[in-house]
Amino acid sequence: MATGAASVPYSTDLATDPTEIQKNLVEKNAEYASSFDKGHLALPPAKKYLVVTCMDARIDPASAFGITLGDAHVIRNAGGNARDALRSILISQHLLGTKEIVLVKHTGCGMLTFTNTDALSVVAQNAGVGVLQSTFDFQPFPDLEQAVKDDVAWLNGNAALIGKTISWLSEASAILHDDHTEAIAMPLQISDTVAKNAVMDGIDPLDHSGVIE
Amino acid sequence: MATGAASVPYSTDLATDPTEIQKNLVEKNAEYASSFDKGHLALPPAKKYLVVTCMDARIDPASAFGITLGDAHVIRNAGGNARDALRSILISQHLLGTKEIVLVKHTGCGMLTFTNTDALSVVAQNAGVGVLQSTFDFQPFPDLEQAVKDDVAWLNGNAALIGKTISWLSEASAILHDDHTEAIAMPLQISDTVAKNAVMDGIDPLDHSGVIE
Repeated sequence: MATGAASVPYSTDLATDPTEIQKNLVEKNAEYASSFDKGHLALPPAKKYLVVTCMDARIDPASAFGITLGDAHVIRNAGGNARDALRSILISQHLLGTKEIVLVKHTGCGMLTFTNTDALSVVAQNAGVGVLQSTFDFQPFPDLEQAVKDDVAWLNGNAALIGKTISWLSEASAILHDDHTEAIAMPLQISDTVAKNAVMDGIDPLDHSGVIE
Repeated sequence: MATGAASVPYSTDLATDPTEIQKNLVEKNAEYASSFDKGHLALPPAKKYLVVTCMDARIDPASAFGITLGDAHVIRNAGGNARDALRSILISQHLLGTKEIVLVKHTGCGMLTFTNTDALSVVAQNAGVGVLQSTFDFQPFPDLEQAVKDDVAWLNGNAALIGKTISWLSEASAILHDDHTEAIAMPLQISDTVAKNAVMDGIDPLDHSGVIE
């Protein structure tokens, strides 16, 4: 039954023969929806920041990083990989007006546990030889801190992310996250290379004033 | 001060002149860490599923979709884009043993509000002409349901994701999410095209038994 401003067909019916995961999703979402009162939140993130972090099942960014609903974009992928997040970061910054990036990688990351050769071998075994090009880059990394440094350097060096001033990523935070304690390790030697509080003038995000949010 | 099994330098010191966002992150994380008792969770997701959804600031997947910590990978990008998530999905399935995909797109998505031409124009205005190739694809979509259908078709058609049987993605859920009500709209015409409960035999994820998790 349609509720709210949904413009799509709405149904709480489960598909025939749903999986346990599908049932859990629909049931828990119904509970969440029954007390949800944040439908007024705007599309652009209120606090104008974005978080790039890992897809790791042990990380709940909202709770672990203190993200209030509506405040920040949260981009997640294998390893909290900045390059892989480029399309999303561009959209977040240029079209939705975010000004600060928080990059969080973590100890015990799966990306530390394999090489491209390992991964290609497993994929070939599971799915067949040739389903991926032999040059496919899973972007694993053998050293966590170096991976943070590399991503920060890449972000700071990307002209499309710089905007009108070199301050575009000046407030990027490079942070290591320990998923044993959920404590954050901030490697100051990295942060120190990033100028703080530079002015973010001249940013012109797309006007969403007419958008039904 | 180092706690737990952190193998990286640990410090609660803030960088000089931290932003409000950095201060909030570190403070809220310290609170979270003080009562965190889930350090025993394993690297591979316990419930063997992954969620692909949007980076939208108004979506908190753990709460809205009932994801218990440790149960599922959560991949987020602009639009909940399956193609953009390929590297992460491959790693999740082949290296970490997930078997079911939940794809969640939502109403009011930013990806409905612009075209590639719009986006390239804004980037050029903010960051300069030529910082992105004119063929850069932000992958916006004008029709939400069609975008879900396209992603499901793409996932089901990707040989690298099929594995040894065509069941690899057989349990993929294609779901629309209404961020006004947080209610889920499940378009049955899409789910019905996806065979249910096919056997996921023959999958051989990478052995992580020796990994410090």
